Amino acid sequence: MSDDEMIPRADVEQWWGTSITRISPGEIDLRGYPVQDLIGGASFAEVVWLLLRGELPERRQAALLEAALVASVDHGPQAPSIAAARMAVTCGLGLNNAVATGANLLGDVHGGAGQQCMDLLARIRERWRAGEDLDEVAADTVAEYRRRRQHVPGFGHRFHPRDPRRDPLLGLVADAAGEGVVAGEYLRAAQALEQALAAGRERPVPMNIDGATAVVYSELGFAPELGRGLFVLSRSVGILAHAWEERGSGARIKGPIPRRLLAAYTGPQQRRLPAR
Amino acid sequence: MSDDEMIPRADVEQWWGTSITRISPGEIDLRGYPVQDLIGGASFAEVVWLLLRGELPERRQAALLEAALVASVDHGPQAPSIAAARMAVTCGLGLNNAVATGANLLGDVHGGAGQQCMDLLARIRERWRAGEDLDEVAADTVAEYRRRRQHVPGFGHRFHPRDPRRDPLLGLVADAAGEGVVAGEYLRAAQALEQALAAGRERPVPMNIDGATAVVYSELGFAPELGRGLFVLSRSVGILAHAWEERGSGARIKGPIPRRLLAAYTGPQQRRLPAR
Amino acid sequence: MSDDEMIPRADVEQWWGTSITRISPGEIDLRGYPVQDLIGGASFAEVVWLLLRGELPERRQAALLEAALVASVDHGPQAPSIAAARMAVTCGLGLNNAVATGANLLGDVHGGAGQQCMDLLARIRERWRAGEDLDEVAADTVAEYRRRRQHVPGFGHRFHPRDPRRDPLLGLVADAAGEGVVAGEYLRAAQALEQALAAGRERPVPMNIDGATAVVYSELGFAPELGRGLFVLSRSVGILAHAWEERGSGARIKGPIPRRLLAAYTGPQQRRLPAR
Amino acid sequence: MSDDEMIPRADVEQWWGTSITRISPGEIDLRGYPVQDLIGGASFAEVVWLLLRGELPERRQAALLEAALVASVDHGPQAPSIAAARMAVTCGLGLNNAVATGANLLGDVHGGAGQQCMDLLARIRERWRAGEDLDEVAADTVAEYRRRRQHVPGFGHRFHPRDPRRDPLLGLVADAAGEGVVAGEYLRAAQALEQALAAGRERPVPMNIDGATAVVYSELGFAPELGRGLFVLSRSVGILAHAWEERGSGARIKGPIPRRLLAAYTGPQQRRLPAR
Repeated sequence: MSDDEMIPRADVEQWWGTSITRISPGEIDLRGYPVQDLIGGASFAEVVWLLLRGELPERRQAALLEAALVASVDHGPQAPSIAAARMAVTCGLGLNNAVATGANLLGDVHGGAGQQCMDLLARIRERWRAGEDLDEVAADTVAEYRRRRQHVPGFGHRFHPRDPRRDPLLGLVADAAGEGVVAGEYLRAAQALEQALAAGRERPVPMNIDGATAVVYSELGFAPELGRGLFVLSRSVGILAHAWEERGSGARIKGPIPRRLLAAYTGPQQRRLPAR
Repeated sequence: MSDDEMIPRADVEQWWGTSITRISPGEIDLRGYPVQDLIGGASFAEVVWLLLRGELPERRQAALLEAALVASVDHGPQAPSIAAARMAVTCGLGLNNAVATGANLLGDVHGGAGQQCMDLLARIRERWRAGEDLDEVAADTVAEYRRRRQHVPGFGHRFHPRDPRRDPLLGLVADAAGEGVVAGEYLRAAQALEQALAAGRERPVPMNIDGATAVVYSELGFAPELGRGLFVLSRSVGILAHAWEERGSGARIKGPIPRRLLAAYTGPQQRRLPAR
Repeated sequence: MSDDEMIPRADVEQWWGTSITRISPGEIDLRGYPVQDLIGGASFAEVVWLLLRGELPERRQAALLEAALVASVDHGPQAPSIAAARMAVTCGLGLNNAVATGANLLGDVHGGAGQQCMDLLARIRERWRAGEDLDEVAADTVAEYRRRRQHVPGFGHRFHPRDPRRDPLLGLVADAAGEGVVAGEYLRAAQALEQALAAGRERPVPMNIDGATAVVYSELGFAPELGRGLFVLSRSVGILAHAWEERGSGARIKGPIPRRLLAAYTGPQQRRLPAR
Repeated sequence: MSDDEMIPRADVEQWWGTSITRISPGEIDLRGYPVQDLIGGASFAEVVWLLLRGELPERRQAALLEAALVASVDHGPQAPSIAAARMAVTCGLGLNNAVATGANLLGDVHGGAGQQCMDLLARIRERWRAGEDLDEVAADTVAEYRRRRQHVPGFGHRFHPRDPRRDPLLGLVADAAGEGVVAGEYLRAAQALEQALAAGRERPVPMNIDGATAVVYSELGFAPELGRGLFVLSRSVGILAHAWEERGSGARIKGPIPRRLLAAYTGPQQRRLPAR
């Protein structure tokens, strides 16, 4: 190459091409809508939908999304994401870094259960629509997870015998299905799964928050991976609130347990460096 | 210490004490409100306010907050936070890690301008309330920044001659002030600053998105540091949307410039290891 | 529970139990060795090994590890991890946050290839030790990847026809095998794979840095997942160096492409909000 | 602009210009040295120095750097950076994300003390070289921190009455000063500060690890900000080792305290949503 080679400007600009936002001097359009029309003209939840999906939702769809976003905002500082964010501010980090620290922890295990439940509901619904009996598919599914000794994602909670967020979310979905806002098929699939899980057990294994929001997001047509993404947006609120509360505490370099306690040591006895 | 020493359970539980969320089996209260009442009963923006402030906002306050959250959601992939998140997904990261990567970058320079503007508006308002003339305080402030050769945070934009998000946000604040929802003092302080910045210049230096949201958040009584926090929540929506769009591209290990281009090298000529 | 319930101190201390480090007032032991003996008495690479494996390496093992750590430190700013870290400092982040941003990006695709190659070499070696012919196993493996239209992890490079780090690393492993420091079985497995990949092709697909370090780490007995971990330690050096160089540039909010270029917009035309 | 506008290739390539690494097909030079010469030819610590400083260190300088890197690798899981990384793996994150989570927490308070100590030592040395009496400068400095009720960064430890890493590190610096490898001025400044802190107190406030490594890095000519950077590289080893140990535990979504304990709640009593 020579030092003064010319290249098409478009090649570089297309490397970062996007269909989300168009900017030009004095103008910002989000998915085609001028930002000044959205400010005051659309709710935060509607704009979440618009950016992720490309189109604005109907009001009733937005209300369902909003309910799910509200449901997941926080579950207290025993969640590792929250604890990590609280510790982060005591190490001198800005709130942006604290929120990032917490959101980073919403991984396959912590934040991925909703996504996995959406995948599972989609597979069940597909078999059902292909003609299989829904209850049999659900029973099959439960049997398969038990054989693999795995938890069915979205069901059961180690703390709540019945998650208090389940009923209001499913109630809203049922209402929306009754009015034709959503089809209700994922709801029925999840309920069939819940029944199959309870069959022959004294204590049922009810849907938890991951399952209930998976139903909402699936009914609204979000891809499973966005189930995790929406959970991240929602829980970021709790992460931020806890980081801010911890900022107010004035604590410095807060560890996971009170200072006078000492992490147990289980390694080798003290020893000398070998001659090498 | 002996191995079977007993300690008060409360000592450990208080180490992680919080006033945000109470959980007990089957129950979750957020700032005292049962989560099932909030699901469907409060908007996402209202719950953001509730968790950060401890009380629910009035509807008109919530509407202002919502407008500011909408205004900042995205400004395209040339923002480093967005570019980093898009590159993150092409490296095989989950959406949670991608959002964390982007949010982490909203630091003192990128995400902190709003916070700094809130601090500045608070100082100006304080002098004004203490009896000084607002326009003189504003002129003083501008002169001081010019002496230090610093930008006044929240004013001017290297891309937009006039930020399209300024007018609708300030218009909503002016309306809210007219109806007594907010006092309007930060709005007046910011306008005085804008006038002082324009004085004697051909091209004005109008308020940008950081300045306009700083006015909203200040009027609503948020602490300056939460200005950054709220911006993080808002921009996380854009970060997520871009990460998701990039996922759809199928790109792998996307670098900042197209592959056939090569970062320029400006270091020493090739050389041999010295004998040591 | 009553407020003054007592619990065993050990329950809390064991929750954070570790076999890595023991601290008591005035004492720090790492894997049993007093830290003051290691300071000046062991190399950085030896202590990396000690902390990860529990025992100190032989000098020749440490030298191999050190060579692999040196080999991966940097490949320039077109790597997304480096670009993200450089952008991070221009947003006002500390070097710790910049290194974190870069390290976060070394995911399944970007940093995981070495780990995947180690997994693959282990499977090949196992079949070989179980009595199969090594070259046939290698040919099988290549055929299988081609059927799935997947790249064999650790082989081929989109930029280097022959990765300059391959030969020196494999040479050191061959020497070490000759002297009985390592067994050389992973080296032979990798070479068989390389030959199978080249068979019938004009241009070979030689081992890249991920493959060559996978051989080193496998020969040294590291678990595959630690292959990624060691790469993270190594590349963190380059990430830090680039973050520091960018700090010196004084750039603010550096985007992925020069400022006068604009990310291409591929979305819908400007439109008005629908009446809702 | 027209769609087929041409731009200089160099404009884009210089946007990502670097003096650290040059790549061309089949070649990688680090600060001018072919990577194949460094593999096996330079230690990991030497390459850390090379990338950060541009030139290779003398062997004795490298040994000092190596000792400081060894000294800081770990202090157990009560450090928030370590605890966060351990929790991260139980949430399903890769080791790269876990190391990033931990490194992110090494902020102004947790990882910045060394950097602050380096700044302080530089100021003291400057006054000393300008002709002031070293002990008086040290006494002044201590008095000033006491007036501001701040800790002197790099001195005192809430756990260790005397940090076991202090003596071996300072001993190596003293030896190196005796042999002319370093000038020893920062060492003397730090010792003067330590004496001034002890004056009139029953219990001295000895240099801690941040102070002792600050002396090493200052003597070696590193910029204060790189003090934090080097600490991040060093502690990343401990973070990785703990993340890996936790992976072995099989724990899922590990919170900061044992599961049967419950974070204390200090917020408002349960209440009903107001009519709005």
